[in-house]
Amino acid sequence: MNSSITGKLDEEKVFKDPVHRYIHVRDELIWELIGTREFQRLRRIRQLGTTYITFHGAEHSRFNHSLGVYEITRRILDVFKGRPQWDDQDRLLTLAAALLHDIGHGPFSHAFEKIYGTDHEEWTRKIILGDTEVNSILKRVHPAFPQEVSEVIEKTHPNKLITSIISSQIDADRMDYLLRDAYYTGVSYGQFDIERILRVMRPMEEQVVIKQSGMHAVEDYIMSRYQMYWQVYFHPVSRSAEVIINQILKRVKALFKQGYAFKQEPRHFFSFFDEKVSLEDYLRLDESITLYYFQVWQEEDDRILRDLCVRFLNRKLFKYVEFHPNQWMKDWATLERRFREIGLDPDYYLIVDSSSDLPYDFYRPGEEEERLPIHLLLPNGKMKELSRESDVVEAISGKKRTDHKLYYPLDLLEDDSEHQEAKKEILHILHS
Amino acid sequence: MNSSITGKLDEEKVFKDPVHRYIHVRDELIWELIGTREFQRLRRIRQLGTTYITFHGAEHSRFNHSLGVYEITRRILDVFKGRPQWDDQDRLLTLAAALLHDIGHGPFSHAFEKIYGTDHEEWTRKIILGDTEVNSILKRVHPAFPQEVSEVIEKTHPNKLITSIISSQIDADRMDYLLRDAYYTGVSYGQFDIERILRVMRPMEEQVVIKQSGMHAVEDYIMSRYQMYWQVYFHPVSRSAEVIINQILKRVKALFKQGYAFKQEPRHFFSFFDEKVSLEDYLRLDESITLYYFQVWQEEDDRILRDLCVRFLNRKLFKYVEFHPNQWMKDWATLERRFREIGLDPDYYLIVDSSSDLPYDFYRPGEEEERLPIHLLLPNGKMKELSRESDVVEAISGKKRTDHKLYYPLDLLEDDSEHQEAKKEILHILHS
Amino acid sequence: MNSSITGKLDEEKVFKDPVHRYIHVRDELIWELIGTREFQRLRRIRQLGTTYITFHGAEHSRFNHSLGVYEITRRILDVFKGRPQWDDQDRLLTLAAALLHDIGHGPFSHAFEKIYGTDHEEWTRKIILGDTEVNSILKRVHPAFPQEVSEVIEKTHPNKLITSIISSQIDADRMDYLLRDAYYTGVSYGQFDIERILRVMRPMEEQVVIKQSGMHAVEDYIMSRYQMYWQVYFHPVSRSAEVIINQILKRVKALFKQGYAFKQEPRHFFSFFDEKVSLEDYLRLDESITLYYFQVWQEEDDRILRDLCVRFLNRKLFKYVEFHPNQWMKDWATLERRFREIGLDPDYYLIVDSSSDLPYDFYRPGEEEERLPIHLLLPNGKMKELSRESDVVEAISGKKRTDHKLYYPLDLLEDDSEHQEAKKEILHILHS
Amino acid sequence: MNSSITGKLDEEKVFKDPVHRYIHVRDELIWELIGTREFQRLRRIRQLGTTYITFHGAEHSRFNHSLGVYEITRRILDVFKGRPQWDDQDRLLTLAAALLHDIGHGPFSHAFEKIYGTDHEEWTRKIILGDTEVNSILKRVHPAFPQEVSEVIEKTHPNKLITSIISSQIDADRMDYLLRDAYYTGVSYGQFDIERILRVMRPMEEQVVIKQSGMHAVEDYIMSRYQMYWQVYFHPVSRSAEVIINQILKRVKALFKQGYAFKQEPRHFFSFFDEKVSLEDYLRLDESITLYYFQVWQEEDDRILRDLCVRFLNRKLFKYVEFHPNQWMKDWATLERRFREIGLDPDYYLIVDSSSDLPYDFYRPGEEEERLPIHLLLPNGKMKELSRESDVVEAISGKKRTDHKLYYPLDLLEDDSEHQEAKKEILHILHS
Repeated sequence: MNSSITGKLDEEKVFKDPVHRYIHVRDELIWELIGTREFQRLRRIRQLGTTYITFHGAEHSRFNHSLGVYEITRRILDVFKGRPQWDDQDRLLTLAAALLHDIGHGPFSHAFEKIYGTDHEEWTRKIILGDTEVNSILKRVHPAFPQEVSEVIEKTHPNKLITSIISSQIDADRMDYLLRDAYYTGVSYGQFDIERILRVMRPMEEQVVIKQSGMHAVEDYIMSRYQMYWQVYFHPVSRSAEVIINQILKRVKALFKQGYAFKQEPRHFFSFFDEKVSLEDYLRLDESITLYYFQVWQEEDDRILRDLCVRFLNRKLFKYVEFHPNQWMKDWATLERRFREIGLDPDYYLIVDSSSDLPYDFYRPGEEEERLPIHLLLPNGKMKELSRESDVVEAISGKKRTDHKLYYPLDLLEDDSEHQEAKKEILHILHS
Repeated sequence: MNSSITGKLDEEKVFKDPVHRYIHVRDELIWELIGTREFQRLRRIRQLGTTYITFHGAEHSRFNHSLGVYEITRRILDVFKGRPQWDDQDRLLTLAAALLHDIGHGPFSHAFEKIYGTDHEEWTRKIILGDTEVNSILKRVHPAFPQEVSEVIEKTHPNKLITSIISSQIDADRMDYLLRDAYYTGVSYGQFDIERILRVMRPMEEQVVIKQSGMHAVEDYIMSRYQMYWQVYFHPVSRSAEVIINQILKRVKALFKQGYAFKQEPRHFFSFFDEKVSLEDYLRLDESITLYYFQVWQEEDDRILRDLCVRFLNRKLFKYVEFHPNQWMKDWATLERRFREIGLDPDYYLIVDSSSDLPYDFYRPGEEEERLPIHLLLPNGKMKELSRESDVVEAISGKKRTDHKLYYPLDLLEDDSEHQEAKKEILHILHS
Repeated sequence: MNSSITGKLDEEKVFKDPVHRYIHVRDELIWELIGTREFQRLRRIRQLGTTYITFHGAEHSRFNHSLGVYEITRRILDVFKGRPQWDDQDRLLTLAAALLHDIGHGPFSHAFEKIYGTDHEEWTRKIILGDTEVNSILKRVHPAFPQEVSEVIEKTHPNKLITSIISSQIDADRMDYLLRDAYYTGVSYGQFDIERILRVMRPMEEQVVIKQSGMHAVEDYIMSRYQMYWQVYFHPVSRSAEVIINQILKRVKALFKQGYAFKQEPRHFFSFFDEKVSLEDYLRLDESITLYYFQVWQEEDDRILRDLCVRFLNRKLFKYVEFHPNQWMKDWATLERRFREIGLDPDYYLIVDSSSDLPYDFYRPGEEEERLPIHLLLPNGKMKELSRESDVVEAISGKKRTDHKLYYPLDLLEDDSEHQEAKKEILHILHS
Repeated sequence: MNSSITGKLDEEKVFKDPVHRYIHVRDELIWELIGTREFQRLRRIRQLGTTYITFHGAEHSRFNHSLGVYEITRRILDVFKGRPQWDDQDRLLTLAAALLHDIGHGPFSHAFEKIYGTDHEEWTRKIILGDTEVNSILKRVHPAFPQEVSEVIEKTHPNKLITSIISSQIDADRMDYLLRDAYYTGVSYGQFDIERILRVMRPMEEQVVIKQSGMHAVEDYIMSRYQMYWQVYFHPVSRSAEVIINQILKRVKALFKQGYAFKQEPRHFFSFFDEKVSLEDYLRLDESITLYYFQVWQEEDDRILRDLCVRFLNRKLFKYVEFHPNQWMKDWATLERRFREIGLDPDYYLIVDSSSDLPYDFYRPGEEEERLPIHLLLPNGKMKELSRESDVVEAISGKKRTDHKLYYPLDLLEDDSEHQEAKKEILHILHS
């Protein structure tokens, strides 16, 4: 073990943070990881994708959030210190995993994953284990350390307790993003009493549990999550912007496959189109690069690509109506036909988006492949799953309220200079 | 006059804003201006340039701030409504000027202005008067309206009262940015009681004045400004990042002038190098475009350009020491010689930066070309300049505390694999 | 109608308020009502009774809260202004009722009501209609105005809309006390987005309703209420202090009835013991008077009265255990016997307290004698009761979770200098 | 040394505090001190005397503040722990002194001190050293411990460092009251970054000093103090209420000395009138007792006493004008004569009050008998007094801005039913 990399800094480093007031770094390892190019790259990737289109304050980056998750974890470990179930040897492993848990995210992750099949969790692993500055620092702790960090993040590490600090139903990740996203959007919903929750957390062999006396604080946290999902994360206007990004990425790939001659070659995207992305290519991609291309594509000859890019950059979004799959069966063919008639390709201009595609988990105990549910620690030492004790949590847990919306360019349909009849029928179907 | 453009919206539009809680838009004109591509472009330009490098929360855009200035102005006008000195006919003019006052800003404005001679105030005028969406909307109010808006922003409009709402020592612009920058950085210094200040503002023929009973609230605001300048805006680490951007822009221009063959042509910059920038070129430039080039330049052959871009993107900044021009005279030649000896061009690696280059104005009454000072309205109807009544304001007003720092790449100087003696002397000079 | 009393103040009066920032008074009537001795008396009555014993910050008075309810009502009426269902003639009536709705409260109302049969709602009516400064001011509006104000507060006024602003499931009263009590206790639970709620309120013929788009904000408000009840209002330690006050009031009355010779005659209480309280006597009673007597009674000869007063003033409270009425049947007689054996009168030292005695109503639609439930206004103009639309509200509505606790003086039982066996059995029963 | 009293609690006790979020008690000694009757008595004494008359939110007690001072001290000691200048053996002494520093305050301390010559600092010593619960607990640490605690509070203890934590220009006392009074009044002025200040505090042999890098945070703290003094503590309306209390106390003593027959004997005041107050008498007096008498005195025969009590309780305060001692010389005799003419005793109805009587010390370095000034610790290890480094602090330090006001009953002077001419002349003098 290299003593300096696991040692303390001569002087604590402090970051001013609007959510946690200050973020404290005392470990050489953490300080060096923050300085890597892979971690600094997170400054160029927004935390909430297209949400800033609706909530203009939400322009904060994943760098922000990653520091926050680290800080909450640090505070949790301060509470755990000295308790028999907690081995302080695991401290650096836990902190490193907290800091790096989102390192594999790219710009507009959800859209890229959907269209190009990338997977940010896979990239997290590759960044931690591959030829990167992050990896070379982690290896200085000991050669197997990168593997351990990766396993904690992937939830395959044998130490379930550590894993549960980073990812469970009440982990440092969620606690930070709720508080942070609420702060930057300005909504009041994401508030909960994190100090109290930290104080009632207890390490157990398999996971972090919550003293029963803290149940109401946890209820409040679950409710914050529920409210943030419906008020912020699933907001239909942000989803419209995301729908447009999906179409841009889809269109540009289709053009590439057709051998279309781009005015400026989208070389940063080539390996994405072929789904053979190298680590270096992946790391190169950030929001600036993506927005650069969206901007130059505004001048492309392809009408669809050009239009979609103009729409995204200048916020000329698609409008939406509620979409009920069963009811619309019969009209769908008509809609598609009419869209083609008026010169709009329905593959790009008539898009159904479902909230069930989104990471909907304000609380689901016991589902398959799910994050660990929350357990309360009763005074008698036994444990009880939260939703069995709380009416409120029970009420919202596991109810998958899918919400389908149909997105389309209302502006083009309202322009009545031509195709009046077709447009009239389209609008009639959409708005009835 | 086109009635619809000056009319009210059917339903008020509301933006959630973390600083002012909500931003209320009731006028068709304002709503349409917000939707223009020139205004949406402000989403891609950060409010505080490189400050986010030091205060990671400060990632907010000029879009954010522009809406905030509009909102404060709206509230001021609500207070003024019905007072004899205020003609509500001027409402839309004032609101439009408030919203658009920063429309001419580009990415890292200060650096571009310094190196390429652009001037954001000039570009504001060109965007308002030129062939833009903003202009075409403003013209719909009446043909001379764009000119009027521009004059208010340039402080040449005959109505001094309106001008003073947008730019004076206590205007909507400053009030928004202090509150907003404090919120996003997380520092507590920028707080002041804006509700009270709004309530003690009174319209007078030549400017907005403050009822004497509100003096302490205004003192508090001036102190916030003073603290924000020293704690946030002049922070030496953010200035280091800006120093590096300056060098990048300088280097890339020098290479271009030398006929250097770029791997990828920096076509977005061509007209900047020649200082013949068209409106379209100017509008194309935003932070994404700039950061795209910084990233591709990391792979250029030119060692200096490559190194500077790596430094900026990965936060390998220059360190600094206090610089006292007089004391350093004799050592300067040695430093430059030694830098050359070890292969570092002092033009790019030994940089003096002065805070006096920055917009230092936490309060200066009565200087030439200055924003209007603050006047208190005494109970007897007379007026008195603030610093004559307030000891605190008097203490800080007009004292230009210039602060010079010398920036240099400490990491390269500490690497003792070669040129040991030269580096030793350099460090000796710098740190003595 | 007396024009001056219904007119506007020459200059708006402003109160600094930590919850609403500022409270604005523009009406002569409101200003004069605030100045009455009956209203000023509310400064000497704490809003939350004994809660300050547990949450030391909760020392705020009913004066505080009454101004807050007035202010929220004022803001609601600003939103309603100009809507067809709202007649602005009713403004002063609504504001006066809001301001005065709690004027009949006395010190530790709940305890006095329980022991002496007073009823703060009845006293509200008497203060408004009787020979008081409040009444004489209200009469200046017009002779029937006091009666109207009283009817609005009593929910018997024909204008259901006005009534619902002051008392329904989402009225100005509840909104203020949740925000205010959360602020002063320092808990985070009472937060909700009141600005948004005010914006989605709509006047209808029979009541205020909420636009459906505001449902999540209302859910959040209901959850705040639920959390405040369990975390703050029902806190078992505050209830212990209240149990002791109940016993003091009970004891002093019993002594009086027995002809006990008080060292200092409790003349402020005489008419309460006889349940023939005059308006003047009622108004004289405030928390200072009550605490004065508690203090002098610390020096009384009666051991029980003395002990109870010492306990309250010096926070030597009773401890508690959960009490399950059915299970305890058989042990109750033993407990009482054993208490007597060791010299403790179980009537004063063995007390069952039930939360169901408390104003438990975080949300109950449609129960008898209940405040009006919340209705959502759907886009199609129809209405729907909230709990039918919201899973969360449905989960907590109407579930009367009664919580019984048994309070007793643990300190006396642990003192093992005498009666060891009896005390051992008592503790065995209590703690098993 | 008694091990249990100096030991740790089995489980940490936590108080919810709106200013510091939570107050943490881990020491048996502190827990027991909080439980004493002398400390619980502070719940019945408001922190800010009559300020709640102007800022209705300021109803918080000295109990509140004392816990806050303890908590800040605890946090300071956490920062000091492990530093060579700090001996952790002194921890309990410092914490106890912090908690008890205000234990000698009585109701409306300033008025009682002025009229009856009591001195809260003397009473603090008597409570700590006399026959009290506090004393008996402190003695259990060791017999000289009460003496040590008292010396720290009186600034006579040989350990200057400990003393400076509790009382200097930047001590735990001031930091708590600024934050707390700002919170409860709702003004924004009292905010400063206490976390940063705590982090830059360093123990030195003679006092706590501040690292130079924290200078701006300290400037901000000094400015908060300055603003709080002018905006809150010296508010002329609160001073009017205090003027009235002074007159009540003065009148009741005069009546007593004249042998006036009170309807109810003011036995709680007897020893105050004679200035021979016993410890037990002093402890008995709290705000309830005082307000009880004010209330019963509303029914006394003496017109002056009755009127003053009605004024205080029902907020019929005196109005004020600026008073310039020199200018008023010639008119003073006329005023007094005219007051007597219209039946008002000028000794009670024509009162000059000076802010210089108030504890005016927002920053005065180096004055006699003054709290220690603030020293900055320079990077070279030397120290520098703050006002020599900070323009802002220099501007406000030492300037004793005395503010005299003349208080009088405007309502009686405006009643023109009789003595028209005399009243006219009085008003003419007062308002010219």
